[in-house]
Amino acid sequence: MTQKKLQVEKEVEVRFSEVDSMGIVWHGNYALYFEDARELFGKTYHLEYLHMYEMGFYAPLVELSIQYKRPATLDDKLRVICTYRETDAAKIIFDYEIRHADTDEILVTGHSVQVFLDMQHQLVWQTPAFYTEWKKINGLC
Amino acid sequence: MTQKKLQVEKEVEVRFSEVDSMGIVWHGNYALYFEDARELFGKTYHLEYLHMYEMGFYAPLVELSIQYKRPATLDDKLRVICTYRETDAAKIIFDYEIRHADTDEILVTGHSVQVFLDMQHQLVWQTPAFYTEWKKINGLC
Amino acid sequence: MTQKKLQVEKEVEVRFSEVDSMGIVWHGNYALYFEDARELFGKTYHLEYLHMYEMGFYAPLVELSIQYKRPATLDDKLRVICTYRETDAAKIIFDYEIRHADTDEILVTGHSVQVFLDMQHQLVWQTPAFYTEWKKINGLC
Amino acid sequence: MTQKKLQVEKEVEVRFSEVDSMGIVWHGNYALYFEDARELFGKTYHLEYLHMYEMGFYAPLVELSIQYKRPATLDDKLRVICTYRETDAAKIIFDYEIRHADTDEILVTGHSVQVFLDMQHQLVWQTPAFYTEWKKINGLC
Repeated sequence: MTQKKLQVEKEVEVRFSEVDSMGIVWHGNYALYFEDARELFGKTYHLEYLHMYEMGFYAPLVELSIQYKRPATLDDKLRVICTYRETDAAKIIFDYEIRHADTDEILVTGHSVQVFLDMQHQLVWQTPAFYTEWKKINGLC
Repeated sequence: MTQKKLQVEKEVEVRFSEVDSMGIVWHGNYALYFEDARELFGKTYHLEYLHMYEMGFYAPLVELSIQYKRPATLDDKLRVICTYRETDAAKIIFDYEIRHADTDEILVTGHSVQVFLDMQHQLVWQTPAFYTEWKKINGLC
Repeated sequence: MTQKKLQVEKEVEVRFSEVDSMGIVWHGNYALYFEDARELFGKTYHLEYLHMYEMGFYAPLVELSIQYKRPATLDDKLRVICTYRETDAAKIIFDYEIRHADTDEILVTGHSVQVFLDMQHQLVWQTPAFYTEWKKINGLC
Repeated sequence: MTQKKLQVEKEVEVRFSEVDSMGIVWHGNYALYFEDARELFGKTYHLEYLHMYEMGFYAPLVELSIQYKRPATLDDKLRVICTYRETDAAKIIFDYEIRHADTDEILVTGHSVQVFLDMQHQLVWQTPAFYTEWKKINGLC
């Protein structure tokens, strides 16, 4: 049985202010593009911050990793692909791939890891019930 | 009788990421530098957001105006001079002047206007008591 | 005879990172939204930076003015309306209006002024020929 | 024989605009702080972009990795420690540690990897002569 792959794709336009003096997107700005896609994922699959908060949890980023393959420049249109990575841990892990919308070249890859904190800001080691439920609904367990 | 001039000066270093593809500071980033100086003013003269909040007021910006005379570039050190402009209105008005730290040339000027909102986010037309008091302490009325 | 109004409208989504600790769009970020619309204007009416550069001119911003009426918050969709303001001076002036996409409320207004520099970075007082031509093509003179 | 550890420390103040709606520094902004320290390293040890460019090389980032331990908030003063990591590869690798200036707590760690491109933007596999020389001068080989 093949499992469902949870994935969204967000189109992003490079802004003038996001390009540095070398004429390419400043490396730190890819965190913006990843977040754009991650937020779209949350909306698409109902895994928003607000929903988690209502369930009693924060989900802060604890790791962000970015690999730069090729530069993006002004007026480039980018496709940011955000894929949910399965894990048994009490974590939310996403893999990212940014492709040039026209050439389809991979420009950037990366991943992010989020953990759960309770309302007292204490790390939650066990998978929260709402997250197990979310996985079930989405055919992941 | 000469009146006291309330003024602070904040030194700011231009960041690589603040420079655009023309090799000059992106125009929108001067709002950062103005804010750096405005916050220093708040600390220096005890007119911080937190203090105003405790007195029951927000003080949102309602106007920001920037004039660009000469460009700043990477590694430039800037002096941001923030001067309180006297007014009888229930407003906080600052004038800004950004000078190159080495050459003393004026690069940018501007001003900002803040008004007072109460905790219900309603505009306050009368000068709040704490602000009148603050003016007195600082020899402005 | 009524004259043609040169105007574009750009839809912008507020990013998580553009919202400040008060839960509203940080005031400096509206310079981003104005620029998004200004660039769309350039593309739509063929008044791009690159084109001007090929004609032998830079067109730096010398003034930016922003009035804040109401705050925008996370996930708000904004319509940024950029309108060309006629002038006999050797300047490019735009007026901006940002409206909430759903409620149509005006959140922010503003304007920007650009002048022309030649390739030696000297201010050009006379309207460049290409700009006069551009005005004619667009029914402005 | 102990080898010299090449390290710089840059103090950074958190800006209002760098804090998100959760009241903590937005995760993408740590790329700014890392860069601040990396630039100081370049100045301190004469490994600046401009110098490398004059030697015929670009040194773009190909990897950035950030681990978030504890949040930083408004007005926090941070110490960003940037340490050169030795490698035989034709790469520049830095490790970063961000500590709270007052409490000395580690808030964020990370590393970055840069490679060398020649003026035709082709990847350089062999360590450039200037970089070998730089290592010698700094007691690294």
